[in-house]
Amino acid sequence: MIANTPHPPYYAVIFTSVRTVGDHGYQEMARRMVELASQQDGFLGVESARNEVGITVSYWRDLVSIKKWKAHLEHKFAREKGRSTWYAEFKVRIAKVESDYGFEKNKR
Amino acid sequence: MIANTPHPPYYAVIFTSVRTVGDHGYQEMARRMVELASQQDGFLGVESARNEVGITVSYWRDLVSIKKWKAHLEHKFAREKGRSTWYAEFKVRIAKVESDYGFEKNKR
Repeated sequence: MIANTPHPPYYAVIFTSVRTVGDHGYQEMARRMVELASQQDGFLGVESARNEVGITVSYWRDLVSIKKWKAHLEHKFAREKGRSTWYAEFKVRIAKVESDYGFEKNKR
Repeated sequence: MIANTPHPPYYAVIFTSVRTVGDHGYQEMARRMVELASQQDGFLGVESARNEVGITVSYWRDLVSIKKWKAHLEHKFAREKGRSTWYAEFKVRIAKVESDYGFEKNKR
């Protein structure tokens, strides 16, 4: 699903990762983190895909909501397990969306 | 591959899409566009993954380099074919990366 975000400006957290081998509870955690993030104040949407790399982009109203989500205890625990177990490598980029545009075939 | 971007600030173009059915030359175009983008002034890297949605994030030095790439004739042609043939839906978000951090297991 393409996230149905409001008019810019808003924020994107681009999380790009390479997984280690084996699940080790990863799928369940990923599902739970999307569920939990969706309940946070300022959450606007999320998009995710994975092949050789995984890319998850979550969208947020402002930097304060990103900071609060980062401080969420269950999220902190998941991030620790991410470093110890699930990820071989990752990069997080925090970016301010300045403009956007879209296309839908059936709406032309 | 996770893109090896410089210290922020720089720009991200987040392209999220849903494909139509069938290839119709899509894979070859996608490969060519990455090759061509990589040759442009200001290009910093690209990351891509696809399941239900595809996410391609390309990284650029500044808005001018994004604008020049958007005006590139072969890229324009590909985008037209994207609307007519390859994509059921897409969204493009242009975002200024303000901060980033990363993790590599073997470098701990």
